[in-house]
Amino acid sequence: MKKTIYIYSPSSAINDKASFKRGIKCLESLGYEVEIDETALLKHQRFAGNDAIRIASIHRAASSGANIALISRGGYGLTRILPDINYKTVAKAINKGTKFVGFSDFTAFQMAVLAKTGEVTWAGPVLTDDFGAKEGVDEIMQACFEDLTSEQGEGCGWRLPKFIQKKSIIDAEIIKSEFFINEECNFDNAVLWGGNLAMICSLLGTPYMPAVKNGILFIEDVGEHPYRVERMLAQLLQAGILAQQKAIVFGQFNHYKLVSHDKGYKLASVIDWLRGKTKAKILTGLPFGHVATKVLLPIGLEVSLNVEGRDAFLLWGHQH
Amino acid sequence: MKKTIYIYSPSSAINDKASFKRGIKCLESLGYEVEIDETALLKHQRFAGNDAIRIASIHRAASSGANIALISRGGYGLTRILPDINYKTVAKAINKGTKFVGFSDFTAFQMAVLAKTGEVTWAGPVLTDDFGAKEGVDEIMQACFEDLTSEQGEGCGWRLPKFIQKKSIIDAEIIKSEFFINEECNFDNAVLWGGNLAMICSLLGTPYMPAVKNGILFIEDVGEHPYRVERMLAQLLQAGILAQQKAIVFGQFNHYKLVSHDKGYKLASVIDWLRGKTKAKILTGLPFGHVATKVLLPIGLEVSLNVEGRDAFLLWGHQH
Repeated sequence: MKKTIYIYSPSSAINDKASFKRGIKCLESLGYEVEIDETALLKHQRFAGNDAIRIASIHRAASSGANIALISRGGYGLTRILPDINYKTVAKAINKGTKFVGFSDFTAFQMAVLAKTGEVTWAGPVLTDDFGAKEGVDEIMQACFEDLTSEQGEGCGWRLPKFIQKKSIIDAEIIKSEFFINEECNFDNAVLWGGNLAMICSLLGTPYMPAVKNGILFIEDVGEHPYRVERMLAQLLQAGILAQQKAIVFGQFNHYKLVSHDKGYKLASVIDWLRGKTKAKILTGLPFGHVATKVLLPIGLEVSLNVEGRDAFLLWGHQH
Repeated sequence: MKKTIYIYSPSSAINDKASFKRGIKCLESLGYEVEIDETALLKHQRFAGNDAIRIASIHRAASSGANIALISRGGYGLTRILPDINYKTVAKAINKGTKFVGFSDFTAFQMAVLAKTGEVTWAGPVLTDDFGAKEGVDEIMQACFEDLTSEQGEGCGWRLPKFIQKKSIIDAEIIKSEFFINEECNFDNAVLWGGNLAMICSLLGTPYMPAVKNGILFIEDVGEHPYRVERMLAQLLQAGILAQQKAIVFGQFNHYKLVSHDKGYKLASVIDWLRGKTKAKILTGLPFGHVATKVLLPIGLEVSLNVEGRDAFLLWGHQH
């Protein structure tokens, strides 16, 4: 029997209809049965329909009985409807086997589901930018997605960025700058959570921020200058969130622009700064974010994290 | 006796030395005695010195005994040093009569001082962009500043934007769109607080976020698209902050770029949306923000807010 994928639009309106169509075709060619939500292509200002319409689309996705509920795209629109989502309906769907997949703006939904129900959703691709990519679908992302739909996925691994031994003077202290941790880093039974850093920070102080202790937090962002990334990390730090994590895993941060005023201040400076402020292990290079090659990651699931030399593994075993 | 102004740099490095010099000259020509902190012109990456240096400069400003402690500029750098500021030293200086003036990144410091000590600081100009402006100093800002230094200031008033009666369909509801409130809006003994919206939101969940009840929150921001402004307001809303305010006063929001994808979504849409979500009165048009014409506003002081027709007044009486 074919696996079913339900496509819906809880955030921004679809502008690039061609990528929407390519995405559908791609999923069908991979052997999936695709159902498109009735308001997936609606437009209201920058949104895919007004708030009530987008909320209803989430509830329809939950009631669809599909194996995968896949968002058409991210953008903006979830934060403002978080109070009106029926989380019991979503939890029921997850318990019946529907996996909610997406990232970026969708992180807000995923954090809210975790906070309100403790249920697992999946950080992963969207329809348009990933399955509908003009340059074709990324092989690694596709393999991870098929692992999920075939319930064969057991985890993911990645190569940590090359070790760079340098001494840099940050804040009048000498800190050994390491782009990957080569010390012991083996954790079991740690809850994996995270996604888009800006979305996570935009939930601080609200009822939609999960309280994860002894967790592994993964983060990514797009178009945010390192100083803004640092400001967001400072907030998580000062709010006591980072102290409660065993590890922080940096995914991809891209499409920002350094300026001459930065004078050597860059993302690596931010990571150096953070290493001086928290005891949590800090790993980098996770293939996840606003890039084609992305792994799928369970949000809210207990995982193990193992580092062997330059190889890092996040493992969660079979998920049925 | 001449009033004294202490200039220091707790955030970004000074790149435009000419505006720094013009600012000093301007203040001296206005009859002030200006003292420049020893590290005001330092550079470390994008910062005016490393963290320890910038923290020390704040403490020197506090110990200076000056009438006004005026930042050279905003930018970025305060958030990360908030845990290491000696707030008792700052409170002592305020009690001895030193007024801390600034805005933008400085909002983080001002919120932290309010949260930690309850003391009043002043939202107002910076040295470079305001007193050192190439096009000359703004007359209204200058008058407000002189009101503060001469202890003659009693409040400020502004003309609310022109009433626009239109019906707009937002979120399947018909909301009367009003750019100013012409209904009764008279509050006494409400604590005024606020500043840069992004900085306020970046403190949510941390010990540096003030807990102001029955307050009047004023906000401004620069270079933030309306959807990001909305996301920040949604956070304040969902964190329960807005429900605790009597009024929310919008200052200036500028230097953002609408795109064709917005399809009519703009700052007015955000304000409309907010009016449907909170009972707090919403006023707009406050002359404060990243603009030349800015009033000076006490952060943490009890004020009265009165609206008469299109005229709004924030009044606090003499402050010695």
